[in-house]
Amino acid sequence: MSSPSASLDELSDEQCWAELSTATVGRLAVRAADGVDVYPVNFTAHEKAIYLRSAPGGKLVAITASPSVAFEVDGTRGQDYYWSVVVRGTAERLANDAEIEESGVLALTTATPPVKWNYIRITPTTISGRRFTSQKT
Amino acid sequence: MSSPSASLDELSDEQCWAELSTATVGRLAVRAADGVDVYPVNFTAHEKAIYLRSAPGGKLVAITASPSVAFEVDGTRGQDYYWSVVVRGTAERLANDAEIEESGVLALTTATPPVKWNYIRITPTTISGRRFTSQKT
Repeated sequence: MSSPSASLDELSDEQCWAELSTATVGRLAVRAADGVDVYPVNFTAHEKAIYLRSAPGGKLVAITASPSVAFEVDGTRGQDYYWSVVVRGTAERLANDAEIEESGVLALTTATPPVKWNYIRITPTTISGRRFTSQKT
Repeated sequence: MSSPSASLDELSDEQCWAELSTATVGRLAVRAADGVDVYPVNFTAHEKAIYLRSAPGGKLVAITASPSVAFEVDGTRGQDYYWSVVVRGTAERLANDAEIEESGVLALTTATPPVKWNYIRITPTTISGRRFTSQKT
């Protein structure tokens, strides 16, 4: 049932980045030949950009074909609230070693065994976030 | 750093549905006019389909224009493992009251205050999932 006591707050850009920085997993949505696809990925945020890494394959192919992506992160702050942030922007594969090193992406943990040596930056065009304080019934 | 002790298991379809059923929030990726968009949504699974509801607006417009969607859910089983499941399929707005009632979608909690009376079903064409047992370093 819809909760009559729920409240919803829009986050400022600064609040979005602050919440983002508490998470390590996000979901990357990309255009695919036959629609869209979505991948859970480890990421890091650095100077208002999103950095992630990827094994060769679907994600990289999709980003090359259509660099406009969306990236979602959400989480909870204990029992206090649920938040979500969506970044829309342009993804590009990084070729410059200095950029890669400076971003901190080299320190990302990964849940998957294969070594992943392609680095991707998402430069936001928009960022938006919401915080839900809800009393679920 | 990549963890040498991580292990990765592909989930069977049955395992995917079993993990899905433990979660209440997923992320719906849709085509947008200028790329893609992604939304966190409450959902329920019923007879191997995904049901969610939506306020009028972006999601519904996007689905009508391009019904091929992707839907991602992930979670952790305590400290044991992290799992993720991705459903790709066709989204449609439900018009039949009997289908809506039978799906269980009417019982969905929502984190957002507005009443949401549009019901959407995603009929999967593919479902895939992974389970990661990783020792993060």
